[in-house]
Amino acid sequence: MIHPIAFESCRILESRVDLSHLPPLSRAVVGRIIHASADLEFAATTVVDEGALERGLDALRRGAAVITDVEMVGAGISGWPTECFLAAARASEGLTRSAAAMRLAVERHPSDAVFVIGCAPTALFELIDLDADPALVIGLPVGFVGAAESKQALRDSGLPAVSNIGEKGGSAVAAAALNALVRIASSDERR
Amino acid sequence: MIHPIAFESCRILESRVDLSHLPPLSRAVVGRIIHASADLEFAATTVVDEGALERGLDALRRGAAVITDVEMVGAGISGWPTECFLAAARASEGLTRSAAAMRLAVERHPSDAVFVIGCAPTALFELIDLDADPALVIGLPVGFVGAAESKQALRDSGLPAVSNIGEKGGSAVAAAALNALVRIASSDERR
Repeated sequence: MIHPIAFESCRILESRVDLSHLPPLSRAVVGRIIHASADLEFAATTVVDEGALERGLDALRRGAAVITDVEMVGAGISGWPTECFLAAARASEGLTRSAAAMRLAVERHPSDAVFVIGCAPTALFELIDLDADPALVIGLPVGFVGAAESKQALRDSGLPAVSNIGEKGGSAVAAAALNALVRIASSDERR
Repeated sequence: MIHPIAFESCRILESRVDLSHLPPLSRAVVGRIIHASADLEFAATTVVDEGALERGLDALRRGAAVITDVEMVGAGISGWPTECFLAAARASEGLTRSAAAMRLAVERHPSDAVFVIGCAPTALFELIDLDADPALVIGLPVGFVGAAESKQALRDSGLPAVSNIGEKGGSAVAAAALNALVRIASSDERR
């Protein structure tokens, strides 16, 4: 059952922006990002790939680990367990704590995990450099220093990815993108 | 010590938008919101009141409770304990769970608490309706349904407040506004 507020929100979204050209998973992800941010700019700047989302969804259906760069992203994810290695990580020369946390995550989950990065560009750069085989990387860090560049590097990497063009992003939109897939993975209709 | 990335981010912010007309606490809060969102629109739309921020800062220095509408806001707050009553609350006819959580919060903290609302307009509407005496209400819920109206109601209420005009907002910017005050409350220079 859809909550009346969510239903009304969907009605308003449809009146503001047309996402009907997008394939189903892409539409679900972009729509949920816009609901979470109330920022229609994401309709034009989010870069999604239906095949990458299918791979991420399949991984979730097989019970994939979901790894976040910060606890705040995990706190925004509903209905799926998440892991964050930031508290266990230590910064060192030339390596931020967020980047060190990605090393720990990839050691634990070298393949088939879903990564959700909403805060730290250095985490995303490190994940791209590591020899990992993730099912999906939701890369939506925010900020003036490195965020846009880290997302461009993600797109250039060939990894299965969701990203956006520009400095915007953040924990809420990163969690929203994952929540769209979790909702579908959990729904009986699509099983 | 300021982290080099934070320093660089401040330098870029200053090159993009001039906040020098704002008094110090207002400037700190608006600046941190923009850092957290990379969205310069908040420079024009955030409504701050230096007196309200002074009251909130004084409350923090006396050890005030900080109450959030959702766990995600608490997860974004650094260096200060937070309380969230959402898990303990139950929805009922005409009352969302977020609103019920505000009732529990005000029962526990009828005066001098700092409220940080980044998600649910219904929580903010309920807090305004309750007979509470908060030190500060950071009201920055996001979304197409009720968010803008709830923030207008907050400004009309006369409560000491931070808000913004429009539908944008969210957990990250709400947490950022509080973090700006926590940073100042924790700094030795200002004690």
